[in-house]
Amino acid sequence: MNSGLERFSINQMTVKQLTLPDLADACGEFGVRNVGLWREPVRSYGVDATAKLVRGAGLTVTTLCRGGFLTAIDPVARARALGDNRRAVDEAASLGTDTLVLVSGGLPPGSKDLHGARERIADALAELGPYAEERGVRLAIEALHPMYAADRCVVSTLAQALDLAERFPAHQVGVAVDTYHIWWDDTAPERIARAGAAERIRAFQLADWTNPLPQGVLNGRGQIGDGAIDLREWKGRVEAAGYTGPIEVELFNEELWAWDGREVLAETAARFMEHVLQ
Amino acid sequence: MNSGLERFSINQMTVKQLTLPDLADACGEFGVRNVGLWREPVRSYGVDATAKLVRGAGLTVTTLCRGGFLTAIDPVARARALGDNRRAVDEAASLGTDTLVLVSGGLPPGSKDLHGARERIADALAELGPYAEERGVRLAIEALHPMYAADRCVVSTLAQALDLAERFPAHQVGVAVDTYHIWWDDTAPERIARAGAAERIRAFQLADWTNPLPQGVLNGRGQIGDGAIDLREWKGRVEAAGYTGPIEVELFNEELWAWDGREVLAETAARFMEHVLQ
Repeated sequence: MNSGLERFSINQMTVKQLTLPDLADACGEFGVRNVGLWREPVRSYGVDATAKLVRGAGLTVTTLCRGGFLTAIDPVARARALGDNRRAVDEAASLGTDTLVLVSGGLPPGSKDLHGARERIADALAELGPYAEERGVRLAIEALHPMYAADRCVVSTLAQALDLAERFPAHQVGVAVDTYHIWWDDTAPERIARAGAAERIRAFQLADWTNPLPQGVLNGRGQIGDGAIDLREWKGRVEAAGYTGPIEVELFNEELWAWDGREVLAETAARFMEHVLQ
Repeated sequence: MNSGLERFSINQMTVKQLTLPDLADACGEFGVRNVGLWREPVRSYGVDATAKLVRGAGLTVTTLCRGGFLTAIDPVARARALGDNRRAVDEAASLGTDTLVLVSGGLPPGSKDLHGARERIADALAELGPYAEERGVRLAIEALHPMYAADRCVVSTLAQALDLAERFPAHQVGVAVDTYHIWWDDTAPERIARAGAAERIRAFQLADWTNPLPQGVLNGRGQIGDGAIDLREWKGRVEAAGYTGPIEVELFNEELWAWDGREVLAETAARFMEHVLQ
């Protein structure tokens, strides 16, 4: 296998044009040993079938994306979200990963209360943390870029994510560090150090920042090396904090999705070697 | 005049479809006493002619937008930027406003060094602050939303803006508080309090946050009341910090620009009365 790719993990969304069997096959061809999976394609293929497939291919599942969306006020919607998150924990356990990434959710319709939404996330974590622990899964709160605060995730900084996580035991709740979301934040390095010291860094994901942003700002994450982020420096910070786990590349990018998925995987692995490792 | 509009200021960009004489005339019709101006249309109409026009209409110029773009590394580009900012100070003085808003600039081409870019802004402020003071103008560093960090402004939080400003006397350098850029940030209220206590809040601007964001994310600022931001609460914070100055509504919004400018002005003033004052 390619030396240098031991810690590299390809997040499934980066090459979502590949079926799960094609992804497993391409990983074998290019020496990729780790994958981050998403619930929707896994459920389409079948959770148990996916677990069998990745095990058979010798792949390690680094994360399952994603649980979360825990900000609803309405009791029915709230109960539904909690139930769905329990299922996500179960799926993570079935897939053999110990990390479920949480995108916490935006403001409920009509609400302008960010603080209240963040508190409801904490309430939900109090219920989900022990459930996950019993199944060997840890919850990773992901700070999403502030441009998603209204519609997707009211947890906008690593500081906020860590403040939430620290209310709970480290073996239940940690954080996901994603360069795309935090690269602009000069307070993030200190929070990485603190999260690392407490063994709360549960995932480390890479994407680069490119302009202009597309309409809706969801699918413009830059290929490694194409953008403004000093990815090597962020890797150094996470490692200095004691993190030695996998490094996932997670790109939502319409242009990459229009290419051949195997080529995108090969290119992404090559970019990782060139711009992150060296 | 309309009671309640004493502190309301219409930023020229909100109704950029109006010529300066039409803007002055519409302000008279709707009881608007304050305007925030932009350099480009002012220079097209003529700085002295604009000063005469607004004086004749009894309007107060609350801010001039914008100086800045101070992050260049290249010495020639840097000297050009400093010269342009001195001219912006002169224009502010001619227009009778004591506030020049600064959009500090993004990363220079090929650079990934946010810290270095922020330090170059500080270096530039050391030169521009005294120049502005001599002309009765104060510089207002505006934190722009983190989604502009690469291409427009490496100062992404009020904390960063205040850290920069506090290196200089308060009568030279302050901050501009704009709800659109900081609403997601739970550390901003404390910084508003600190900036207010030091009399460094030089401008207070409003725009609402609406989704989805348009391609390029520049011209999707929401009309007052249409979005996720609790504008009344932010006004309360700024006032609790001691700020009693004008409140500018500054919307970059393609839909509003396609309407009749006078109607947009009337609507914006009405929205301000309904969603901010009451």
